Amino acid sequence: MRILGIDPGLAIVGFGVVDGGRHSPAHVRHGVIRTPAGEKLPRRLLMVYEDFCELIGTFKPDALAIEELYFQKNVNTALPVAYSRGVILMTAQRHGLSVAEYSPQQVKLAVTGYGAAEKKQVMEMTRVLLKLKAMPRPDDAADALAVALCHAYTAGSLLGRDQ
Amino acid sequence: MRILGIDPGLAIVGFGVVDGGRHSPAHVRHGVIRTPAGEKLPRRLLMVYEDFCELIGTFKPDALAIEELYFQKNVNTALPVAYSRGVILMTAQRHGLSVAEYSPQQVKLAVTGYGAAEKKQVMEMTRVLLKLKAMPRPDDAADALAVALCHAYTAGSLLGRDQ
Repeated sequence: MRILGIDPGLAIVGFGVVDGGRHSPAHVRHGVIRTPAGEKLPRRLLMVYEDFCELIGTFKPDALAIEELYFQKNVNTALPVAYSRGVILMTAQRHGLSVAEYSPQQVKLAVTGYGAAEKKQVMEMTRVLLKLKAMPRPDDAADALAVALCHAYTAGSLLGRDQ
Repeated sequence: MRILGIDPGLAIVGFGVVDGGRHSPAHVRHGVIRTPAGEKLPRRLLMVYEDFCELIGTFKPDALAIEELYFQKNVNTALPVAYSRGVILMTAQRHGLSVAEYSPQQVKLAVTGYGAAEKKQVMEMTRVLLKLKAMPRPDDAADALAVALCHAYTAGSLLGRDQ
């Protein structure tokens, strides 16, 4: 099973590709999609769409793993994240990927064994579990790898074996 | 100029098609896209995408007119509206439509001459201006016609003539 983890946003979308099930998740690639602040919203969303289609075409993932979105404050400035997330969910479905959504707590629990872990701990465990020498950068890409890992462990566990 | 007005949502997307500039806006069609509550989010967003593509193919609009989104409360239950709106903005851009966003106040002002008009007044003026015998139903479709009208008046005014 190949998993594409996504940390959605409008200015920056983190992605992380992970292979395998829970016993041997392996790092494939990570990075970000960026859109320029000077462009209008519809054009930036189209850039996210086109680059995300290209990611799917390049890595041919079986599943999309993505965090659920919660807004506590500053809602209207965070709306662009929701627009981008809508485009990503639709596009994954359109390409036949299975889509798995996880809460931040589920990701922390899966990666560190502790649902209230600090962000730093999650990033460090992501690095260790994927046998990376350096911390994945930027944070958006590390977050995307973490949610991909979460799905590797969770889906692998549900299926009772590596995929 | 043919304008496609949209009132975004996940369960129901209102649409209204209006022809012409500010002196003679003419009603073409209105209606809704619906997605079933029992389906998962990514699949419902794909339905919105596919039906919206079909609307564009059928009516060949030059412009999308859509209200800006503001959240005052109940934010997390309103997130699906933002996902759907993201898909719609991206898709309009992808099909080469110009995209115009208006605040609720701008729509009220353009349609009734009064930026703090009641929803009922906006709907009644929309009906009158488009020479419709009956009130457009459901409300989502009437709202979509109102924002399309708003763009007809605003864009016509900016250009100094009917398009």
